[in-house]
Amino acid sequence: MKKIFIIGAGLSATVLIDYLLEHSVEYDWDVTVGDISLSQAQEKISAYQQGRAIKFDIFDPESRASEISNTDIVVSMLPGAMHPLVAQECLRHGKHMLSPSYVTAELRGIDAAVRAKGLLFLNELGVDPGIDHMSAMRVIDGIKKRGGKLLSFKSFCGGLVAPDCDDNPWKYKFSWNPRNVVLAGQGVARYRESGQYRYVPYHHLFSTLETVEVAGYGEFEVYPNRDSLQYCDLYGLEDIPTILRGTMRRPGFSAAWDVFVQLGCTDDSYIMENSHRLTYRQFIQSFLPYSADKSIEECLADYIGIPRHSEIIDKISWLGLFSAENIGLENATPATIMQKILVNKWSMSVDDRDLLVMQHQFIFEQDAVKKKIVSSMTYEGVDSVHTAMATTVGFPLAIATKLLAMGKIDARGIQLPLAENIYEPILDELESLGIRFIEEECQYRI
Amino acid sequence: MKKIFIIGAGLSATVLIDYLLEHSVEYDWDVTVGDISLSQAQEKISAYQQGRAIKFDIFDPESRASEISNTDIVVSMLPGAMHPLVAQECLRHGKHMLSPSYVTAELRGIDAAVRAKGLLFLNELGVDPGIDHMSAMRVIDGIKKRGGKLLSFKSFCGGLVAPDCDDNPWKYKFSWNPRNVVLAGQGVARYRESGQYRYVPYHHLFSTLETVEVAGYGEFEVYPNRDSLQYCDLYGLEDIPTILRGTMRRPGFSAAWDVFVQLGCTDDSYIMENSHRLTYRQFIQSFLPYSADKSIEECLADYIGIPRHSEIIDKISWLGLFSAENIGLENATPATIMQKILVNKWSMSVDDRDLLVMQHQFIFEQDAVKKKIVSSMTYEGVDSVHTAMATTVGFPLAIATKLLAMGKIDARGIQLPLAENIYEPILDELESLGIRFIEEECQYRI
Repeated sequence: MKKIFIIGAGLSATVLIDYLLEHSVEYDWDVTVGDISLSQAQEKISAYQQGRAIKFDIFDPESRASEISNTDIVVSMLPGAMHPLVAQECLRHGKHMLSPSYVTAELRGIDAAVRAKGLLFLNELGVDPGIDHMSAMRVIDGIKKRGGKLLSFKSFCGGLVAPDCDDNPWKYKFSWNPRNVVLAGQGVARYRESGQYRYVPYHHLFSTLETVEVAGYGEFEVYPNRDSLQYCDLYGLEDIPTILRGTMRRPGFSAAWDVFVQLGCTDDSYIMENSHRLTYRQFIQSFLPYSADKSIEECLADYIGIPRHSEIIDKISWLGLFSAENIGLENATPATIMQKILVNKWSMSVDDRDLLVMQHQFIFEQDAVKKKIVSSMTYEGVDSVHTAMATTVGFPLAIATKLLAMGKIDARGIQLPLAENIYEPILDELESLGIRFIEEECQYRI
Repeated sequence: MKKIFIIGAGLSATVLIDYLLEHSVEYDWDVTVGDISLSQAQEKISAYQQGRAIKFDIFDPESRASEISNTDIVVSMLPGAMHPLVAQECLRHGKHMLSPSYVTAELRGIDAAVRAKGLLFLNELGVDPGIDHMSAMRVIDGIKKRGGKLLSFKSFCGGLVAPDCDDNPWKYKFSWNPRNVVLAGQGVARYRESGQYRYVPYHHLFSTLETVEVAGYGEFEVYPNRDSLQYCDLYGLEDIPTILRGTMRRPGFSAAWDVFVQLGCTDDSYIMENSHRLTYRQFIQSFLPYSADKSIEECLADYIGIPRHSEIIDKISWLGLFSAENIGLENATPATIMQKILVNKWSMSVDDRDLLVMQHQFIFEQDAVKKKIVSSMTYEGVDSVHTAMATTVGFPLAIATKLLAMGKIDARGIQLPLAENIYEPILDELESLGIRFIEEECQYRI
């Protein structure tokens, strides 16, 4: 019997916990779910005979030691900042660890120690990062096996709303952390295009767009992610002339969001004066030149350089930003205020279902012919619990846990799911679970 | 006999040291100049019979204790970051301290302890901060004494180049720390206009301009400084509807500098890939969209939205940014590269003289009439040693030191030169030394 300890029983852990409990009898697993809220952990296992729910506080050294020492595999669904604690404890007690979070420099620093103990800490096993790595590597390895030379790799992902629940002018609702959406893209975006490095500052990010088409779902627009260049090393594409990763939104989103970026509404670095007394209207006014005779709507349109009657102004108006209502946040930064405004308007209702879209575009040369492969995945959430996010994060993590428990992964150290013997079985099973990539290949002409 | 210990003998300390040594016999002062470079300290006192030069390292606890304990007044010309060390040592040994640097939160924290020991730590005694405080407070106090109610306070300052040395298309040369010029304005600028708070993000800063006229010197443009709002408290202007501080440049500077801001060339937060191999041309290209058929000059003009043949393009071209020469900086940020480019082009030659310009604009209501006072100061450097910067920083600090040594300042604690009994004698003497404000008053019509 293998013991599996899942830390964190939040919304994004639902699908993972279900999978492991559903298969626990068949594979002889002893599954424990620990959460800071005991009732949340209990609720997640309530439909099953098997499984154990406990209150677990990662910051309590005693229970951290006792629970982790008493298992075989730890699956951590905690926020990224808490992973070093989990990792150190797993290393101390000689336990394998899996997580959907990004590998940090701190984690990379213990690679030798993890290897020395014969352990595997397998990370970035969700959807983005996770499925993006695996599905891209499958195509990249395939092209290399055919003797193809990669010229361009572009990879796009978006957490959006399913078409039949897509009923607001922004064509966007929160399917993930709202704060991260407000702050998205701050800093500089870096990528490479036709051999030329390109750096895009935040205030140009949402006007630096690509348009992509996804079969059955129509058009999307894409803005560049922060660091596309790190994927050169990660994916073995050191010399590739073009590499770009980006975030997908429905057309028109970025041009309207860019207004907030231009105004400075997403700044999280300072507290606004008298924020508790501000109305939504005054919030916007704070970023506009003073005018004694123009309305705020007119000021805004003129300042940004858009028509006074336009879809962009409609979108901003729909968010309630021209209302004279009080915002009611004390000592708030612009970003905090934006978050409150957006949570009011962009939250999913219980009947809403989310949508996960991913597309990779590869251009390569084979036998002196340029070819293009486009590989796309779409997945719609089933309901407000079995969201596309929870499903596409939970399944790959659950499958990896199963493979590790079965002794089918022999890699050791700090790892990502980039090797064929890891990504192949995971992608195959994901396909059987409805998470599949459609691949199209064609000759490429500029 | 009063002992005065000047720490730091760099360029900006020259005028200060000269003043104190010139007056040391008359006032019976024992002046010591300490610098990390003994020869630099020696050079600064070489023209005088009196005075002592020593090698002094602020990071050496022994000499720090022995030199500071052995004086009456410490004048610190060290960079701002080193002031806490000086302040702690002065506090420990019960010595007064003067400096041209900004008061930090750390310094404010020891106010009670400084008072308890009967000491004065008088800061912000240079030109900006320094003369700006004193000259503004003189007018503000004057308006209040007349029963006037302040409606608007705008204050502008610039370190520029004297008209007859103003021979480049930017009409700018470095008279102060180049790195600070490259990074100027990053973050958000805050001010108040007609009762409305205004926040200007960095990427709009250099297009948010005022135009001002200074008698004898013509037109200048002004971009807002980071935090104008702090001056409400500082100057007792809590309810003033309009308050703005800004930096002066010659017309046309900001529109061209804004190109670098728009492109992201002043970002200091990341290292550019292969920076040691970059040419100036490639540096600019890194911030532009890839184009197979347009020149970099064309790309730039189109991207920024300016004519391909324009003064802005000429200014950028004059800096050498379109040259195919190698930059030759390893692991450099964009800001570091910009600094190197600018130091090549904007450094003062030995024959160049700098120019310090300051202007305060006050609007106030008195007896139901709106009035305006404009108070302006210009000062041209004499040569490359007696620069306007060194003179306008050194004289107020030297005069304050004299007043303190004579027992004419009875304030204690952490102070700024905002009180009448401090600023009046300093401004009066500055006037006799050629640093004078010209005040014009008129009725104000919108």
